[in-house]
Amino acid sequence: MAEPTKKKTVARLLTADFVITMDEDYTIYAPGAVAIDGDALVAIGPQEEILATYAGKEQVDAGNAAIMPGLVNAHGHVPMTLLRGLADDLRLDVWLMGYMMPVEREFVNPRFCWLGTQLAAAEMIRSGTTTFMDMYYFEEAVADATAQAGLRGVCAQSILKFPSPDAGSYEEALDRARDFIMRWKNHPLIIPALAPHAPYTVTPELIKGAVAIALEFDSPLHIHIAETAQEVEDHRNAYDMPPVPWLKKLGVFETKATAAHCVHIDEGEMHTFLHYNVGVAHNPSSNLKLSSGFAPVKQMLDMGLNVGIGTDGPASNNDLDMFEELRLATMIAKGITMDPTTLPARQTLEMATIMGARAMHIEDLTGSLEPGKRADLIILGLDKIRQAPHFRRDPESIYSRIVYASHAEDVRDMLVNGKWLMRNRQLLTVNTAALRAEADALAGKIDKFLIQREESVLSKLVAIGGVAQEHSFEIQLKAKVGSEEELKALEERLKNAPGITITRGSRRRQYDTYYAFDDPWGNRLRYREDEVIHLDSDEVITVIYRLTLTTQAKEREYEHSIILSRARFNTTATHSKRFYKEYFAPETEIDIEKERRRFHIQYGGTDFALNLDRIIQPKGMGCFLEIKSRTWSRQDAECKASLIGKLMDVLEVPEEALVRKEYLDIEF
Amino acid sequence: MAEPTKKKTVARLLTADFVITMDEDYTIYAPGAVAIDGDALVAIGPQEEILATYAGKEQVDAGNAAIMPGLVNAHGHVPMTLLRGLADDLRLDVWLMGYMMPVEREFVNPRFCWLGTQLAAAEMIRSGTTTFMDMYYFEEAVADATAQAGLRGVCAQSILKFPSPDAGSYEEALDRARDFIMRWKNHPLIIPALAPHAPYTVTPELIKGAVAIALEFDSPLHIHIAETAQEVEDHRNAYDMPPVPWLKKLGVFETKATAAHCVHIDEGEMHTFLHYNVGVAHNPSSNLKLSSGFAPVKQMLDMGLNVGIGTDGPASNNDLDMFEELRLATMIAKGITMDPTTLPARQTLEMATIMGARAMHIEDLTGSLEPGKRADLIILGLDKIRQAPHFRRDPESIYSRIVYASHAEDVRDMLVNGKWLMRNRQLLTVNTAALRAEADALAGKIDKFLIQREESVLSKLVAIGGVAQEHSFEIQLKAKVGSEEELKALEERLKNAPGITITRGSRRRQYDTYYAFDDPWGNRLRYREDEVIHLDSDEVITVIYRLTLTTQAKEREYEHSIILSRARFNTTATHSKRFYKEYFAPETEIDIEKERRRFHIQYGGTDFALNLDRIIQPKGMGCFLEIKSRTWSRQDAECKASLIGKLMDVLEVPEEALVRKEYLDIEF
Repeated sequence: MAEPTKKKTVARLLTADFVITMDEDYTIYAPGAVAIDGDALVAIGPQEEILATYAGKEQVDAGNAAIMPGLVNAHGHVPMTLLRGLADDLRLDVWLMGYMMPVEREFVNPRFCWLGTQLAAAEMIRSGTTTFMDMYYFEEAVADATAQAGLRGVCAQSILKFPSPDAGSYEEALDRARDFIMRWKNHPLIIPALAPHAPYTVTPELIKGAVAIALEFDSPLHIHIAETAQEVEDHRNAYDMPPVPWLKKLGVFETKATAAHCVHIDEGEMHTFLHYNVGVAHNPSSNLKLSSGFAPVKQMLDMGLNVGIGTDGPASNNDLDMFEELRLATMIAKGITMDPTTLPARQTLEMATIMGARAMHIEDLTGSLEPGKRADLIILGLDKIRQAPHFRRDPESIYSRIVYASHAEDVRDMLVNGKWLMRNRQLLTVNTAALRAEADALAGKIDKFLIQREESVLSKLVAIGGVAQEHSFEIQLKAKVGSEEELKALEERLKNAPGITITRGSRRRQYDTYYAFDDPWGNRLRYREDEVIHLDSDEVITVIYRLTLTTQAKEREYEHSIILSRARFNTTATHSKRFYKEYFAPETEIDIEKERRRFHIQYGGTDFALNLDRIIQPKGMGCFLEIKSRTWSRQDAECKASLIGKLMDVLEVPEEALVRKEYLDIEF
Repeated sequence: MAEPTKKKTVARLLTADFVITMDEDYTIYAPGAVAIDGDALVAIGPQEEILATYAGKEQVDAGNAAIMPGLVNAHGHVPMTLLRGLADDLRLDVWLMGYMMPVEREFVNPRFCWLGTQLAAAEMIRSGTTTFMDMYYFEEAVADATAQAGLRGVCAQSILKFPSPDAGSYEEALDRARDFIMRWKNHPLIIPALAPHAPYTVTPELIKGAVAIALEFDSPLHIHIAETAQEVEDHRNAYDMPPVPWLKKLGVFETKATAAHCVHIDEGEMHTFLHYNVGVAHNPSSNLKLSSGFAPVKQMLDMGLNVGIGTDGPASNNDLDMFEELRLATMIAKGITMDPTTLPARQTLEMATIMGARAMHIEDLTGSLEPGKRADLIILGLDKIRQAPHFRRDPESIYSRIVYASHAEDVRDMLVNGKWLMRNRQLLTVNTAALRAEADALAGKIDKFLIQREESVLSKLVAIGGVAQEHSFEIQLKAKVGSEEELKALEERLKNAPGITITRGSRRRQYDTYYAFDDPWGNRLRYREDEVIHLDSDEVITVIYRLTLTTQAKEREYEHSIILSRARFNTTATHSKRFYKEYFAPETEIDIEKERRRFHIQYGGTDFALNLDRIIQPKGMGCFLEIKSRTWSRQDAECKASLIGKLMDVLEVPEEALVRKEYLDIEF
């Protein structure tokens, strides 16, 4: 008979052919056992020894499987499960500013975040992730959905300098973050944190405010750093230094900081991270899918940095599968260093477990199977055909089986904080059926929103923000002047004409690109680089980038081909020409280059703008006069049309020179 | 009542929410249906239309799933499932020559190939691959196992210039290939083919022989090309041109050729491929895992080449999962081109279906769902949490759901050549239980083989081939000479000594690296770069690379410290110093550099070798005399020991100058 009285009773006793601890010595027990009581790991060791010492109220023998630490996902935006697959294979700016942000502005609310997080939790549990670091809006909803699912989360409330779905200003965002931290601190599963979003979306004041709160509550601070080369270049231009020293000066690294991406950082910046124990979250899928670049992972690891692995948001991955990230992390590192010994399987798994926990500053809680730590573990089946054979010669070959040949689907069971979240691939804490119905309905709404937007170039323009929808009218006359000599003569007549007062003038060189669309409104979008040139030299004083939308619909045509139309929609072009082209996807594209002398005049007590244009490209088009005025009413328009008729006479513009078309429509 | 009489009856009628054809127009029917009769696709179209036209004896509604072409794996060595995980995270040469080839030499036989292929078939069926291209030994066993599993295979018999597990010479390999093709041609599932292995493992005669057979039978020809930069450089050095023009000259591209890897080819070589319609098999996992480099996939696709995707062998992947390859192919291409619009999801899936079939020259049979083609398809479930939501706005978003968020495990059913191979993830044609037991037993034997080998440096040396195990004895005397002047004086005495005839002499500069091991035999491995230098100038005539194994065990020590030992094991060092270091993993490493005057003399009717050595590195060690002779018997050794004693007197070597140690053990 055994001597059961001598055994200590624990809540759970798990045994398996392999227990992989990821402790400091990378101890593997084969076969091994784990004793668990309450939320904590009590003992891990050789199966025989543990079974001789402990008796479990629940006893599970996993057989041909590995009991191992749950995977740690070091960076993501989990509610974005709801936006997965919304827009793929696009440039970062088109993807982000053309799709993600407009849809987020319209749809993100606490329910969105809760729903998206619950679905993410289901996905993470089924793919072996027990702990994750998140950065999104309404983070209290993320925290709540995470806690309900039973996962461990470092949930960081986003803070941006712009208005965001959950805050009208960064001060409001800081207040929200502080409130969130106070409510959630000391939760057994949730570690509330702050996320000043990225160097290019914050201000020094915002950063200082976030650092103060992080230090006050000893909260983790999560931030994107150096994701793209452009970001670093822009930062250098703005602040004369790359992001890392700038953030250091602002005190960011005095906190328990975790930096996501770090694709474009140099050795000095890595040394800063090392000195301040800044954790790094490497995101292989996202960095490749968005073509951000190849993070210097081997260099960071060689230097001794704690580099975890993250999925990033499911809109840029497109899933939350850490097994895929493990595989990708090691593969890319080998490829880029041209050295197949780079990131061997064990080190890669380390990144996704204990090192990830260190990068998130929670290694005292989780990331390895060691007595006293929380009981966060998975049971990974090793019985699939693709996981065979098992060579016993090298005890570490188990790592290669996990990293190179195991899939998320091999995760059989999950225990977090001592509680089962999945048994035999059945979720125990998340009810996905109801969630999915709600998510499907939401996807339908998002589809509808985007379809409506796509129908109109104006809606797409509005969607990317900032356009001034000035619903006034514009009245215009255009006439062909002919040669440059005639244009000069016209300018002389203008300057000497009785009754005309020139209030100001400027000289411009304008590079216009017209995008035309196959839509019923005849929409046209004009991207203009407007160089303001010194009147006496060829020096460029400034360049103005404008985006202008016109429709071909005329409101009315007066005598002398004077046309009344709805005023154009104007906005500063903050993105590149390439961005607009890809975002609006026009049917055709036409370039026009001209030199313009612009005069603001008063005539008959009324303001007019006069343009004397010499078309440079296309060649041979000639020179033109434009007379324009804005108006708020149709009556006023009629009065102005009459004044323009008189101006024609004063400036000696013959009736036959009048042109009814825009420059791009003129045949010559 | 319906009008069943009007409907055509077919064997099977499948319906699903999506039918993805991958035809020329990338037609998607949502919902769609597929009518199948015998081994062929009869009709594919909108669900309503097909259901109105056809009645199926078997009717399957897949619901929230996609019926799509089975995946096409364009390159691999499928029996290597049995070697998966044997050795990972190693350099290509260590991995290949240190592990794969020695184990293959020992274990590969027809049963190995049949067993490995059956397991591979089970894995491929479960991960959605209906067609694959293979290159291995005993390809008739591969073909048989494939046909039994019901998969479609282009099975290429390897032909190498070296002896291989299935042929003692390349002539034998060619005969074997011809026999294989004759037996298997016209099989409904198997397309027999030839695989002259790679430019660096063939001879022009071998290639010509293979091309002749391929043309005679119109068989596909499969070959590795430009996998590593080293291969291309070596080829240029040997033939003054890279591999592609060399192979072109030999007529390889007159055949239906498929080139695997093509990592290091230039634009001109791509044009050659285009001209001759050479298919390319891109292997993302393998090229990264072995650090071969990044294939110029986008450039090849832009040029119009047919680029398929392959897993390569499971020993360098480590699985046969084409979903992982799809994901990796698009991710890497985006990363390397720094353009996220590179390889969008649809194009990536195209590579793994119809384009792969084109690369293998079997697009008339498979790769897309079109009437008349063979019924090779999979049903991919779309009901996983990670595959949601489905945005309907862009009909092509289905490709993104497949490429970025679907896993092998989502493949529910597979039909090849009109026959079910899997239903609801249950394999119907492969019985894995028995196969796995056999594979496990084999893994145990391989473990044992490698453990025995690892125990002895000699076995490891033998394992990489070519070592001459000369079991003779060596007799040796060593004496310290002191200064260079004394060495010169000794040389004069030697030249003028009565009874000594110098038969020949040479001058060497020797760079030795000694690897020492923590083993019971005191094994030492010496890597020597032996520069033979002109006697009168410093010109290097040739360099000899030698690898020599010694043990510290002495057989006997005679008078005058003359030592008898077992002769050393010598072999030409065909690999790099770095290779040996990584392969043998020594405990310590010591460098010794010396200048040697070597004399072959006759004395007392006996041959001796005399070395006058000046040690250059480590500094301060001084100069030495060595007298050596080989012998076949202990009696002869005694006689020679006596003659060496007399030589000592003739050359005036004092007793106290005698040294019993090897250079690396001498303290100074």
